[in-house]
Amino acid sequence: MTKRASTVPTQSLTPTRRVEITRVVGPTVTRTTDVAAAEEPLDVRLHGRSFAVIMRTPGDDKSLAAGFLLSERIIRSFDDVGAIEHCKHPDQRKAHHVVDVYLVGGAASRVPAMLEQRRQVIANSSCGVCGRSTIDELLGELTPLPVDPGDARIPLDVIRALPDRLRARQSTFDETGGLHAAAICSPDGEILAIAEDVGRHNAVDKVVGRLLTTGVSGRILIVSGRVSFEIIQKAWIAGIPVVAAISAPTSLAVDLALAAGVTLVGFLRPGGLNIYAGPERLAGV
Amino acid sequence: MTKRASTVPTQSLTPTRRVEITRVVGPTVTRTTDVAAAEEPLDVRLHGRSFAVIMRTPGDDKSLAAGFLLSERIIRSFDDVGAIEHCKHPDQRKAHHVVDVYLVGGAASRVPAMLEQRRQVIANSSCGVCGRSTIDELLGELTPLPVDPGDARIPLDVIRALPDRLRARQSTFDETGGLHAAAICSPDGEILAIAEDVGRHNAVDKVVGRLLTTGVSGRILIVSGRVSFEIIQKAWIAGIPVVAAISAPTSLAVDLALAAGVTLVGFLRPGGLNIYAGPERLAGV
Repeated sequence: MTKRASTVPTQSLTPTRRVEITRVVGPTVTRTTDVAAAEEPLDVRLHGRSFAVIMRTPGDDKSLAAGFLLSERIIRSFDDVGAIEHCKHPDQRKAHHVVDVYLVGGAASRVPAMLEQRRQVIANSSCGVCGRSTIDELLGELTPLPVDPGDARIPLDVIRALPDRLRARQSTFDETGGLHAAAICSPDGEILAIAEDVGRHNAVDKVVGRLLTTGVSGRILIVSGRVSFEIIQKAWIAGIPVVAAISAPTSLAVDLALAAGVTLVGFLRPGGLNIYAGPERLAGV
Repeated sequence: MTKRASTVPTQSLTPTRRVEITRVVGPTVTRTTDVAAAEEPLDVRLHGRSFAVIMRTPGDDKSLAAGFLLSERIIRSFDDVGAIEHCKHPDQRKAHHVVDVYLVGGAASRVPAMLEQRRQVIANSSCGVCGRSTIDELLGELTPLPVDPGDARIPLDVIRALPDRLRARQSTFDETGGLHAAAICSPDGEILAIAEDVGRHNAVDKVVGRLLTTGVSGRILIVSGRVSFEIIQKAWIAGIPVVAAISAPTSLAVDLALAAGVTLVGFLRPGGLNIYAGPERLAGV
């Protein structure tokens, strides 16, 4: 079973974070560290109430909040903003993930209606929204995926062969260069469902949905791009214990994989691969 | 001025769509066509009421809806689903972008509370959500960006130099391989603001927000990756008339750029570039 308390580090305040990995190059397996892009939720509040929670890389948070509010047409110019500031809560490691915005004039008078319209699912974030609290919240509702000693370990060669198998079936990608692909595979790497979409999350939802409707279950999710927190969350909820990606995972994806008992392989390239979580499901590691 | 009526084609029902482009390779400029990944909104309805609008590539929509509802933990298994079907509205080109889901048992009884919790901003989608209606809705509230005959045209060499300028300033990317970058530049290609983020939209919001708070205005938005509908929407709202991307735009990004009067350059690579909309702001085209 995956240990819980020790696996979720304190949230990041910087744009990158060092993570421990198992690096596999040919037959050589080493424990080392790598740098992951940091991903943490930012709670954008209007007049003290949560307006939106954005998964973002820490840094430039007040600019992000301002640009987001312009894009959402909550403000028309910076003249509509009376104050924009990080939360002043005494625990600055939590307060860092909250930006408080106060509007003035006509924009201020529209705030109650806007908040009503956008009632948040993540409502009770008080001064505590951060990767840690997000993962704790999920752990309150979901059980980490157990490693069944009866399951055969998946050979690394099966994992290494996945990118070519995915590309061979990616019909649209070569045409447009604009689509993400995702596939769910059996333990021997056979593709059970594959989907392409402009949205990386949609491609995962499509393959999960396809297997859900057909009743077939798969062991490995392979994605063509990077891995965010949300991809790991989707695999966890769907009960898929191994996630492999051609590109990089975010810091919070690594944290969640460790907490959720999901095996996470990234940078799956001809030269090698990185194992960020759950090496015990793989053979020869 | 950009013509409106003729520039927004009927929405796509297929995963790709052919778009007209101006292709520039060295000194050679040709009118040709290219294939773009299709992007269209899908309205996922629960018991006849809009639950979520997802920007997606058409195809496998019922799987997407099922996987999405599992990921959102609205359903726990396919047993919770009584029916999942495309809308039966007689206009099938519109109905194709609506999936109706009906739940059974305990899941069905939770639907009213779930809908209440997730009240949609895009509420009145009736049987009409599609790229066309989404763009029409924006055109009802925003004015297309005019081409000012007094503005100097931007030389193609300025556009061609942007990727190297962006990469030279992308401090974190080389470390992690996991971040998107966006920058806003002056008409001569000077970078006025740059940001990196795990989310492509966040990187754009950060640079837009940075300039908003400082009062500086830029003419060109350059992004490290692909261009979705939402990136063009953000540029339009921020009044940035030129968007350039290293990678591909989606079909709806092209449609919106044409409708919004935004110049859109994609596949900006050493070998050449594609102009999808608004060539009149560029010199030598």
